[in-house]
Amino acid sequence: MRQLIKNIHLITNDEKKTEIAQAYVLIDGQKIAEFGPMTHSLPKAEVVIDGQNGILMPGMINPHTHTGMIPFRSLGDDVPDRLRRFLFPLEQFMTPKLVKASAKYAMAEMLLAGVTTFCDMYYFEEEVAHATDEMGMRGLVGQTIIDMPTCDFENPIAALKWTEGFIERWQNHPRVRPVIAPHATNTNNEETFKAIVQMSRKYQVPVTMHVAEMTYEMEEFQEKYQQTPIAFLERFGFFSERLIMAHCLFIEESDWPILAKYKEIIGIAHCIGANTKSAKGVAPVKEMRAQGLKVGLGTDGPSSGNTLDLFTQMRMFANFQKTYNHDRSLFPAKEIVELATIGGAKALGLEKEIGSIEIGKKADLVLVETSSVNLFPIYDVYSALVYSANSSNVTSVWVDGQQLVKEKKLVQHDLRELREALAHEMTEFVQEAEIRAKEVD
Amino acid sequence: MRQLIKNIHLITNDEKKTEIAQAYVLIDGQKIAEFGPMTHSLPKAEVVIDGQNGILMPGMINPHTHTGMIPFRSLGDDVPDRLRRFLFPLEQFMTPKLVKASAKYAMAEMLLAGVTTFCDMYYFEEEVAHATDEMGMRGLVGQTIIDMPTCDFENPIAALKWTEGFIERWQNHPRVRPVIAPHATNTNNEETFKAIVQMSRKYQVPVTMHVAEMTYEMEEFQEKYQQTPIAFLERFGFFSERLIMAHCLFIEESDWPILAKYKEIIGIAHCIGANTKSAKGVAPVKEMRAQGLKVGLGTDGPSSGNTLDLFTQMRMFANFQKTYNHDRSLFPAKEIVELATIGGAKALGLEKEIGSIEIGKKADLVLVETSSVNLFPIYDVYSALVYSANSSNVTSVWVDGQQLVKEKKLVQHDLRELREALAHEMTEFVQEAEIRAKEVD
Repeated sequence: MRQLIKNIHLITNDEKKTEIAQAYVLIDGQKIAEFGPMTHSLPKAEVVIDGQNGILMPGMINPHTHTGMIPFRSLGDDVPDRLRRFLFPLEQFMTPKLVKASAKYAMAEMLLAGVTTFCDMYYFEEEVAHATDEMGMRGLVGQTIIDMPTCDFENPIAALKWTEGFIERWQNHPRVRPVIAPHATNTNNEETFKAIVQMSRKYQVPVTMHVAEMTYEMEEFQEKYQQTPIAFLERFGFFSERLIMAHCLFIEESDWPILAKYKEIIGIAHCIGANTKSAKGVAPVKEMRAQGLKVGLGTDGPSSGNTLDLFTQMRMFANFQKTYNHDRSLFPAKEIVELATIGGAKALGLEKEIGSIEIGKKADLVLVETSSVNLFPIYDVYSALVYSANSSNVTSVWVDGQQLVKEKKLVQHDLRELREALAHEMTEFVQEAEIRAKEVD
Repeated sequence: MRQLIKNIHLITNDEKKTEIAQAYVLIDGQKIAEFGPMTHSLPKAEVVIDGQNGILMPGMINPHTHTGMIPFRSLGDDVPDRLRRFLFPLEQFMTPKLVKASAKYAMAEMLLAGVTTFCDMYYFEEEVAHATDEMGMRGLVGQTIIDMPTCDFENPIAALKWTEGFIERWQNHPRVRPVIAPHATNTNNEETFKAIVQMSRKYQVPVTMHVAEMTYEMEEFQEKYQQTPIAFLERFGFFSERLIMAHCLFIEESDWPILAKYKEIIGIAHCIGANTKSAKGVAPVKEMRAQGLKVGLGTDGPSSGNTLDLFTQMRMFANFQKTYNHDRSLFPAKEIVELATIGGAKALGLEKEIGSIEIGKKADLVLVETSSVNLFPIYDVYSALVYSANSSNVTSVWVDGQQLVKEKKLVQHDLRELREALAHEMTEFVQEAEIRAKEVD
């Protein structure tokens, strides 16, 4: 089927940052077939969509989230050491049904905000893979491997063994890609890390992990190994397959040559909203970019970042990076939109398929309306997207050529039903959560 | 007329932070007449509104903005020294009609985002006062007094003289309050400052000014007076009437005793979004609060902060203040909602009338729906407001008991018409703006 989207302000995010003020795009099947100015004679199509002068941009890419964690949102937000006080203890109440309902809800939220691809790490990831398939999104999906008993596995080796079957079941799916997801550098043992590296090489699948996020992680590595987490990862052979590292807040001087050496195989998920809400700090993205590293903007989970949209991340990114570097001209809006789209695609190793609007690429597209009060005037569409727009301005979304959001609503699903299904599965979890919230008060 | 709003989660922001999960509020005329839990027998009313489990909160208060500056939005956002390169030169193209159209549009934007009161400083403020009256908002309105020829006055004394008539014309308006608005500490001469202090005393009207915002302002004061701007203001007798100071980024050790001494008469408009977008820094709000100073959250103008909503400010405030102070538990969400409401009211000296939901106070109210995807689950309504909500979640707004927003639309005005009127007035301005934007490219 051919779909023509006309009367749009097109930002392609290709290498030249091609921008056409009055444009059309033709989708043919799953792919972008053609685009150009409205002065061309328009191609024929079965479906014609009037973009009403909205901004058409590549689907946004969220390289780090935990879709199963919607049940935790707004719980204990301002409490110290929330991970060990709230998150780990409550995770024992997660069930496959709850994870699936949460993941579908989280994906609905991402789609409605213009996110078309994500990288997920949590528990019961078979369910997340099915949810991704059912919601029509593109996702990298990885089962948490951690050196403690969890809601689904007794130990990390059992989780890793399961991952092998998971990879085999999903490796040929067109939109769902299995990945290996050790929780963090400091929450796994050496034996597990060795087995993970072997498995990633055997199947040529990426690994994703929390890296250099916690001050106690840094201290532990210093004491135990006299090494940074990044040097430790190199020693274990982690940079032979793609490694998608979330956070990377604490980069030591000695880490830079290692990162530079593996810049083609490393992706960094910079989660500015979550990192600063928890007062952890601001990752050195200016320096990362100077080294040629591939950086995308991640939301982290809905308990850490609270929203799953990249508009919030783009705005936070602008303000934090400019202020931390004392330079208002650093990271102009155009570069921030790049990070949220093709930047994320490069971090995930998917830049040949997605992240920009180019002929032959997958039709993962987002239409942002410009009729809402916050979007006038527009001298610069990138500024409008970064400094003014929010997720409620997203009006249409396509993934793999399929329109999943139309007039700000899901096409294939009913949001209220997704919410009711999730609320139903959350009953026991909420009881436990409220007991803990009261203990803190 | 009596209006009953039922089925709401009520947060009053009174001294005790009273919160009622299933509640109603009764508006009688312009005032809050009654509130309580839904288990009470509900009072009779001519109008009954079902809040559908939304959050009813006090109207948000924006203590610093420039409503005339919508024409500048998204222009030269990432350019160094934008004030002197873009803003001052283009301001010569402002006209009374353009300011009025811009102000009405800006007020529409604020209302739709749940802001019910603002403090404005710009040019042609007679027009802004009329716009405030016509839009039904509550505003402190001040004509910029600056030591250079502007679009409306040859010199600051002419602007000040005009202000005297402005005060006399508007001082008895129920919602529009005239204020005196010298531009900044470093953009006026001593003679003007003396005359401003005299006039503020004569009419007992507040003064509002940009204070301690620019590094060059601090350097100039050091060179010229060997004094900080705040010490300079004290020397000129500025703290005898209310002084609403925007920004206060650079507070020296010697300033704190001065600020503490006048804490009842000083209001601080902290504009975190604008301050950090321009890489200026993060004001020491923790220390201000420790000294008992009254701090509100301001948006600054639409060219500096780009949006005129306090949701963006609350989220930015949380993340910046926690990160700068290395403490995730600092400024819990409840305290941030306080700053955005009663905090702003105290900064403006209006806390007896507005800023909290208490019997006898003005009915300036905001209803935030909780059915959108970003607002589930809610364990803590304050967390939901600060970390998840955005302006698109505001569904109803009342000012002075009058419902101005209903089902996310303006009641008395048509947004499209306001926009078209503004676009019409902007024609010449846009031509000039685009010439300058090209020069920068």
